[in-house]
Amino acid sequence: MKEACFENIKSKESSLPERTAEQISKLIVEQHLTCEDKLPSEFELAELLHVGRGTVREGVKLLVARNVLEIRRGKGTYIARNPGEIPDPLGFAYYPDQLRLALDLAEIRGQMEPWVARMAAEHATTEDIVRLRESCSVVEQDILNERDHSQNDVAFHVAIAKCTQNLVVPKLIPIITYAVKLFVSLTESRLRTETVIGHREIVEAISNGDGQRAEKVMAQHIEYNRALLQEIVEKMKRDGAQNESAGS
Amino acid sequence: MKEACFENIKSKESSLPERTAEQISKLIVEQHLTCEDKLPSEFELAELLHVGRGTVREGVKLLVARNVLEIRRGKGTYIARNPGEIPDPLGFAYYPDQLRLALDLAEIRGQMEPWVARMAAEHATTEDIVRLRESCSVVEQDILNERDHSQNDVAFHVAIAKCTQNLVVPKLIPIITYAVKLFVSLTESRLRTETVIGHREIVEAISNGDGQRAEKVMAQHIEYNRALLQEIVEKMKRDGAQNESAGS
Repeated sequence: MKEACFENIKSKESSLPERTAEQISKLIVEQHLTCEDKLPSEFELAELLHVGRGTVREGVKLLVARNVLEIRRGKGTYIARNPGEIPDPLGFAYYPDQLRLALDLAEIRGQMEPWVARMAAEHATTEDIVRLRESCSVVEQDILNERDHSQNDVAFHVAIAKCTQNLVVPKLIPIITYAVKLFVSLTESRLRTETVIGHREIVEAISNGDGQRAEKVMAQHIEYNRALLQEIVEKMKRDGAQNESAGS
Repeated sequence: MKEACFENIKSKESSLPERTAEQISKLIVEQHLTCEDKLPSEFELAELLHVGRGTVREGVKLLVARNVLEIRRGKGTYIARNPGEIPDPLGFAYYPDQLRLALDLAEIRGQMEPWVARMAAEHATTEDIVRLRESCSVVEQDILNERDHSQNDVAFHVAIAKCTQNLVVPKLIPIITYAVKLFVSLTESRLRTETVIGHREIVEAISNGDGQRAEKVMAQHIEYNRALLQEIVEKMKRDGAQNESAGS
């Protein structure tokens, strides 16, 4: 393995394990390593980066924590399947006002997802449509069996995003649908029928290649949800204010 | 500190440090801890979570790696300023085709940012406008002095996003502008004048509260960049194909 591209990493500002992690990450990028590839051994990395094996171990731990590397039991350390992609990448779980977060996300969804649906209708392959129909019926099964459908609902919207053939759109959907779980728990069963009908209309428009209709039915679907969420949040605030004045 | 909400964490699937990290993260959320707050001591956490201090230390390292916690030298371990927010949260650095990534991101920017500019014009406060003007002139200084303006360019688009008063929009901008650095290096000096003029038009429209015009000039700004990027990428592909056939 060539050494030339790796600077002496002991000279910079951040901690040694952090800089070692950066160098390993650079190596993954430059050598085009994928999830098929095993990371070079601790010994090799220590030689290559001119650091001790303990430092390599700490650097590897950092990259495992960030899902760049994964440890496969009994096999060793590999590059992760989607390196660097982590759940809740914007730290929404730590936002103090989850209701406001849900409303702000609904605003973004209302702007973005109708466009995504139109793009999906314009670019979906036959295989995409098959997967989309499957995903749609999984959500329906959840709803019919009165299970929490939030996870599969997100997967349905990701399946639509995959039809666009844009690499990034399917990665943005899990971020902007972060509040779906909260939303489903707040609305309880009130939206089940609307969800089934809305999803079916979207799937039909996309499989007919009708971009305009896909955009329209998606806009209706998201707006229906957004308006209901807003109503619930306003009611909660009014009730909260009443309780406060009753208590004072 | 109450113990009741913390389950016995030795019983689940993932590794013990990973589950400890989850419990600490739960504690941060439930106790509404912010960047002003110091994390309880290793000793306290070990008692509370019924694990050893070594395990607490490993769990804390995981959360430091994910920017949920930060170590302030000489002061101890604190909650991070934007807990859970990391640079490059979707792992774009590991995408093999950076040019395709840049084009796909440009497509998303072209759809999203004109809307962001309109919202900015409709909701900006006087303070927002002051910050936006400052940010605009920082980019101009970079360009006049022939410095790489990509980082401050992203900051300018974030400053616009902050005018929307939507919590999430400013967090999405650094993701969708990931390719700006690559773009600036590909276009070299060709876009400098257009960037200065485009940015000024956007700032004027937003500070006049003219949503329609803000949307329009932002759409032009992004589309100009996208079209130039596409032209460059297609030229690179043609040259690549020529080199290949010349080599065969």
